[in-house]
Amino acid sequence: MPTPCDLLLHAAHILCQVQDDALHTLSDGTIAITSGIIRALGSKTELTPQWQAQRELNLGNALLLPGLINAHTHASMTIFRGIADDLPLMEWLGNHIFPLERQLTRRFVHLGALLGCAEMIRTGTSAFQDMYLMEDEVCRAADIAGLRCLAGEAIFAFPTLNIPVPETAPDMIREQAARWQRHPRVRIAVMPHAVYTTNPEILRTCIALAEELETPLHMHLAESPSESATCLEMHGKRPIPYCHDLGLLTPRASLAHMVDVSEEEMDTLARSGVCVVHNPSSNMKLASGVANVPVMLERNMRLALGTDGAAANNMLNMFAEMGRAALLHKVAGKDPSLCPAGKIFEAATIGGAKALGDTRLGVLAVGRPADIIALDLNCPNLQPLYAPVSHVVYAATGMEVRMNMVDGEILYLDGCFTRFNYQDLLMEIQEVRKEVSKIHSLLRISPST
Amino acid sequence: MPTPCDLLLHAAHILCQVQDDALHTLSDGTIAITSGIIRALGSKTELTPQWQAQRELNLGNALLLPGLINAHTHASMTIFRGIADDLPLMEWLGNHIFPLERQLTRRFVHLGALLGCAEMIRTGTSAFQDMYLMEDEVCRAADIAGLRCLAGEAIFAFPTLNIPVPETAPDMIREQAARWQRHPRVRIAVMPHAVYTTNPEILRTCIALAEELETPLHMHLAESPSESATCLEMHGKRPIPYCHDLGLLTPRASLAHMVDVSEEEMDTLARSGVCVVHNPSSNMKLASGVANVPVMLERNMRLALGTDGAAANNMLNMFAEMGRAALLHKVAGKDPSLCPAGKIFEAATIGGAKALGDTRLGVLAVGRPADIIALDLNCPNLQPLYAPVSHVVYAATGMEVRMNMVDGEILYLDGCFTRFNYQDLLMEIQEVRKEVSKIHSLLRISPST
Repeated sequence: MPTPCDLLLHAAHILCQVQDDALHTLSDGTIAITSGIIRALGSKTELTPQWQAQRELNLGNALLLPGLINAHTHASMTIFRGIADDLPLMEWLGNHIFPLERQLTRRFVHLGALLGCAEMIRTGTSAFQDMYLMEDEVCRAADIAGLRCLAGEAIFAFPTLNIPVPETAPDMIREQAARWQRHPRVRIAVMPHAVYTTNPEILRTCIALAEELETPLHMHLAESPSESATCLEMHGKRPIPYCHDLGLLTPRASLAHMVDVSEEEMDTLARSGVCVVHNPSSNMKLASGVANVPVMLERNMRLALGTDGAAANNMLNMFAEMGRAALLHKVAGKDPSLCPAGKIFEAATIGGAKALGDTRLGVLAVGRPADIIALDLNCPNLQPLYAPVSHVVYAATGMEVRMNMVDGEILYLDGCFTRFNYQDLLMEIQEVRKEVSKIHSLLRISPST
Repeated sequence: MPTPCDLLLHAAHILCQVQDDALHTLSDGTIAITSGIIRALGSKTELTPQWQAQRELNLGNALLLPGLINAHTHASMTIFRGIADDLPLMEWLGNHIFPLERQLTRRFVHLGALLGCAEMIRTGTSAFQDMYLMEDEVCRAADIAGLRCLAGEAIFAFPTLNIPVPETAPDMIREQAARWQRHPRVRIAVMPHAVYTTNPEILRTCIALAEELETPLHMHLAESPSESATCLEMHGKRPIPYCHDLGLLTPRASLAHMVDVSEEEMDTLARSGVCVVHNPSSNMKLASGVANVPVMLERNMRLALGTDGAAANNMLNMFAEMGRAALLHKVAGKDPSLCPAGKIFEAATIGGAKALGDTRLGVLAVGRPADIIALDLNCPNLQPLYAPVSHVVYAATGMEVRMNMVDGEILYLDGCFTRFNYQDLLMEIQEVRKEVSKIHSLLRISPST
């Protein structure tokens, strides 16, 4: 007698891990899902008679793959998308981004994050790691949109809009962690901003807090040679030795950027078990430099991918990120065999799962959460199909995503967001745009610009 | 009394050149089109009463911009998309691409080109420059799909599938040129393949032939340091001095890649008036190197953008190409203000028009051909909108294109290709895929691999 299940998903191709750890492409495949978990995965003709589904969804000529994991972003910054580009770094930060961020409101943070979630859902992301101010609003947005989120309030040595007294940060994080503790998809992590905006005491406190809360720790690190110079001046050491000596470089930590890394520091990293979150678009756009990803892969370091915020990218699109990662390191390393598609896909899935501290994610396999996306293989740019992973990394734009499912729940299908009213969000973003434009135009007439 | 016109197009924003040469954004704008030409362009409230249209199309919250120009591709190579990636260059070419190309048929070339046209139409390209074998089949595809095409049979020093006797190439090109002479959108150009696959005599013949036919000349040039070494060995000079001495570097010539260019050669190029076609994705994927585009822009050289073929990219998507161009040179030149969005957009439009020898194209302005695309601004990644050019270059994937119009004729609108049956094409591509897979699997078991 057939076993009952919530949903049977059928598609022409499924990129999955069937028995061993290797990636397989299953043709004419079916996935059976109950209570948000993949219960079976195999050929349609075999599985269909074995399962009795409450609902069946046949996606036809689609490729099912695990939802992508954006391991470093600031989702709320979508509200600043394209407001200031192509500027020298200090002018961009000092005259545009920082002054705009001083005017942030909870509403801006929330609506920006919800727009970021909409973009991530639309382009195949199922989980993201986010650091920002008033991070509770990002959690609320992820909760509404249905995405998984590892969220952290940015911790600085100076007062912020949300933490006027820096010393109160740990208690605030404890409260946040307690507030979201029972949420099925949203979790709180400890996120000191960077070495140049904190001090050793704060970093030690953060390390202890992450252990106390049993949560990951996430930070920007070694983003550029100029960060290294500042760190050397402030703390007497370059970023990686400085963090190593403080005890921050452990498997609990995921570190974004990691561009300016010496050979010796690479040894330190490889031994430490940290996860590196590579952000190629941001590193390119801000001219931060090229992270040595081929060596990180060669040394089996844990590697994830992130989009960074929309002010520095300007997309939150993991397909664009995969493509750029795969291409950038070939030309930088003068070798077309560097960063092959499979390794980059792994970083965007399994690697992201490790960064977010949830290793159930990132693969389609029996017993794993049903975080599944479907690409429309009828799009001309995905034709013909010889190697699915190649199309995912090199040919897809992200907009071929027809369906995005998290925990067995469909968040997006064929143009429709299921959990929130997208048209209403667009109207609210129009209002935000007017307000941000006004703030920005006032900044631009100030004599300091 | 209102003037009659064929079509009135309305949209929330239009990226156009109204009076001077500068790019403007017109809000709540309208374009009046008759016989494929833009007759008027202005505010909706002003224009609507002045024109009586046979048809009106209101695209709502869309951004109209000129169709993009892909100034270097091999459209037919879509049939090899993703069949072999991440390989050392010589293995990729020698064991995969060249052996596959030896098995090309007219049908492969035609269907591949039609698929390439579908992808280009879908992602906002209105004109392309193409070099391949059996190029008449590419012309036929462009004719069917409705795109503009400057097409050239690749000319080699050795026999090809289409030109068994190399000496007969000029006559064959003359015949092709005569055959397509009266076509409104398809033209023939003279396209020697490269310096390492031709000889001085052939290049001299090509230069004379382009003058005789009054058509552009297009060639791969200075793609990589290894090409330079080969050229030095074969012809005693590096590629640029070699071509300069032959008289090839004139305003008639557009040259793809131009990666390995010395400072002195940059002077030669800047004085010559040639057009450089930059192919960032291909140069990155094949690890050819980084063309010195910032210097080319600084010296006011004519710069266009191209996708190259799908085996080396793997997209024919000019939005992806613009984004990568803008990002690559910032990180390579360690300066985030290099290659700003406006310059890159210009290369993908006006620059491409120059490369294709049709300077009417690339701008929306009165008197210019109605080659217009519309981006759906309701897509989450194009929200909010502060600066249209920033979104076009940094935020759009290309799949936001809702409409693609060439010569006033709609080629694509909201999911539908108007001039050919896309579902039939998909079925034919399925057949091609089987045949190509079979050829490829036979290659792979050969002892030479």
